[in-house]
Amino acid sequence: MISPGKTRFTSAMQVRPDDIDMFRHVHSSKYLDYVLAARFDQMERCYGMPMQAFLDRGLGWVVKVSHFEYKRPIGLAEKFNVTTWIEDIRGSDVEVRFEIIKAEGNRPACLGWCVCTLVSLETGRPEVIPADVIEKYAI
Amino acid sequence: MISPGKTRFTSAMQVRPDDIDMFRHVHSSKYLDYVLAARFDQMERCYGMPMQAFLDRGLGWVVKVSHFEYKRPIGLAEKFNVTTWIEDIRGSDVEVRFEIIKAEGNRPACLGWCVCTLVSLETGRPEVIPADVIEKYAI
Amino acid sequence: MISPGKTRFTSAMQVRPDDIDMFRHVHSSKYLDYVLAARFDQMERCYGMPMQAFLDRGLGWVVKVSHFEYKRPIGLAEKFNVTTWIEDIRGSDVEVRFEIIKAEGNRPACLGWCVCTLVSLETGRPEVIPADVIEKYAI
Amino acid sequence: MISPGKTRFTSAMQVRPDDIDMFRHVHSSKYLDYVLAARFDQMERCYGMPMQAFLDRGLGWVVKVSHFEYKRPIGLAEKFNVTTWIEDIRGSDVEVRFEIIKAEGNRPACLGWCVCTLVSLETGRPEVIPADVIEKYAI
Repeated sequence: MISPGKTRFTSAMQVRPDDIDMFRHVHSSKYLDYVLAARFDQMERCYGMPMQAFLDRGLGWVVKVSHFEYKRPIGLAEKFNVTTWIEDIRGSDVEVRFEIIKAEGNRPACLGWCVCTLVSLETGRPEVIPADVIEKYAI
Repeated sequence: MISPGKTRFTSAMQVRPDDIDMFRHVHSSKYLDYVLAARFDQMERCYGMPMQAFLDRGLGWVVKVSHFEYKRPIGLAEKFNVTTWIEDIRGSDVEVRFEIIKAEGNRPACLGWCVCTLVSLETGRPEVIPADVIEKYAI
Repeated sequence: MISPGKTRFTSAMQVRPDDIDMFRHVHSSKYLDYVLAARFDQMERCYGMPMQAFLDRGLGWVVKVSHFEYKRPIGLAEKFNVTTWIEDIRGSDVEVRFEIIKAEGNRPACLGWCVCTLVSLETGRPEVIPADVIEKYAI
Repeated sequence: MISPGKTRFTSAMQVRPDDIDMFRHVHSSKYLDYVLAARFDQMERCYGMPMQAFLDRGLGWVVKVSHFEYKRPIGLAEKFNVTTWIEDIRGSDVEVRFEIIKAEGNRPACLGWCVCTLVSLETGRPEVIPADVIEKYAI
C-alpha cells in the first residue's frame, strides 16, 4: 500500500487582465482556474505524467468537490505562487490541498482543497487510480 | 431581530459555448459564475435591491468561502435552473445555499454554499449589513 | 447553386457578472462569446441543425477570422440582442455578420463579422460544406 | 511631432486549462485576452508606464476595433510568444499589431491588430493621448 508523499510543489503565475472583475480584483471563480493550472504544470513538471498522458490512456480528471477560503484580494498584474500537494488518495479520488500566496509580502490570498476524480473518457464513470499513477504520486 | 426568510428563488439559464471545457462539459469554475449570475438576477428581481444599488451606496459583495459539490456534468447548450436562498445572516456575512438542477430530467448538477461578505468599496473592509438590507432579505 | 438567404435571426441575452471587467463594462473578449452563443442558439432554433448534429457527423466549426467594432459599452446585468446572418458561403467557409444591440434604447454596442470554417474533428482540416447544410443555410 | 518607434516586444506565455474549448484547443476569444495580457506586461516592462499608472491618472484603455486571423490551433499547456508593436498613433487611438507564435516550431498561431482608445474613467469619453505617453511610445 503506497501513500501520497504530500510533497509540496509550487507554480509561479501572474494575473491576466481577463481575470479582473468589477472591483479591480481577481474574480472569485478564477482561483479554481489557477489551482487547475498549477496542477497541470505540476503533473508534467513534478510528477512526470502530464494531463496529455492521461488523455492518451482514455482517462481524464474532473473536480468532485471544491472548497475555497478567500483571504486577501489579488490585484491587477500581481504575481503569486500556487502551492499544491496530494493529501490523500482514495479509490478513484485524489484530495488536493492548495495555498495561493501573494508574491509581494508572501501573504495568503486563498487556501482550500479539491477532491478530483479520475474518470474514463469513454463512459464518464470513475476509474480506480492505476498503480503506476499512485506510485508517481507517492513522492 | 430579523432572520432570513430562506425563501428559495430560481433563475433559468443556458450553457454558453465558452463555458465548455476539453471534456465537452461545463468547466468546473463556471458553476460559481452561474451562482453569482443567479444572485445578481434574484437581488434585482426577488429581493428588490440590485447589485447596482449596493454600488451606488459605496458597497460591494465579495465571496469569502465557496463550497461546491459536483454531481453530474452539464453539456453543450443545456438548460438548467439555479435555485438560491439565504440560510443565515451574521454581521457582514450572508450564507447563501444553492442547487443547480438540470432542466431536462430535473436532476442535480451541483449543490453547495457560499459565504458572501458585504464590503466598503472605499476601504475594502467588511461592513455590517444595514438594517434595511436585512429587512429585504427577511422574505 | 444555392445562396445563403441572409435571413437575420436574433437571440436575447443578458450580461453575466463574470463578463464584467475592471471598467465595470463587458470585457472586450466576451463579445465573440456572445456571437458564438447566438450562433449555437440559432443553429438549433432557426436553421434546424444544432452544433451537436455537426459533432455527431465528426464535424466542427472554428473561427478563421474575426472582426469586431466596439461602439458602446454594455454594463452590469444589461440585456441585449445578438442578430446574426450568413452573408456568404465559400467552400469550407461561412461568413457570418452580426450586430449586438442594447435592449434599452436599441443602440448598437458592437458590429462585425466572422469567417467560420467547417473542419473534420479527426484531421482538423477544412471540409467542404455538405449540400444538405448549404440547403439549411439557404433560408 | 513624434512617431511610434514600432519596436517589437515579446511576452512568453502558457495556455491555462480554462483557455481550452470543446475541441481541446485554445478557445477563439482567448486570443484577445493573450494580446491584452502581453500589452499589460509590455506597458510596464518595456514602455515604462504600467496600466496602474494610467488608472492613477484617471485614464483607461478600451478596445475600439479588433481584427484576428487564426492560423493554427494552440493546444493544452502549450507555450507561445506574443509579440506586439505600436504601428500608429492618431489622436486618442493607438493601433497595436500583434503576432502570436507557437514556441515549439515557431509558427504563427494568430496574427492581427487592435485599435485601442484612451478614455477618461470619469466620463468614458476619448482623451487625446498626452505628450509624455506619446514620448514613451516613441521607442
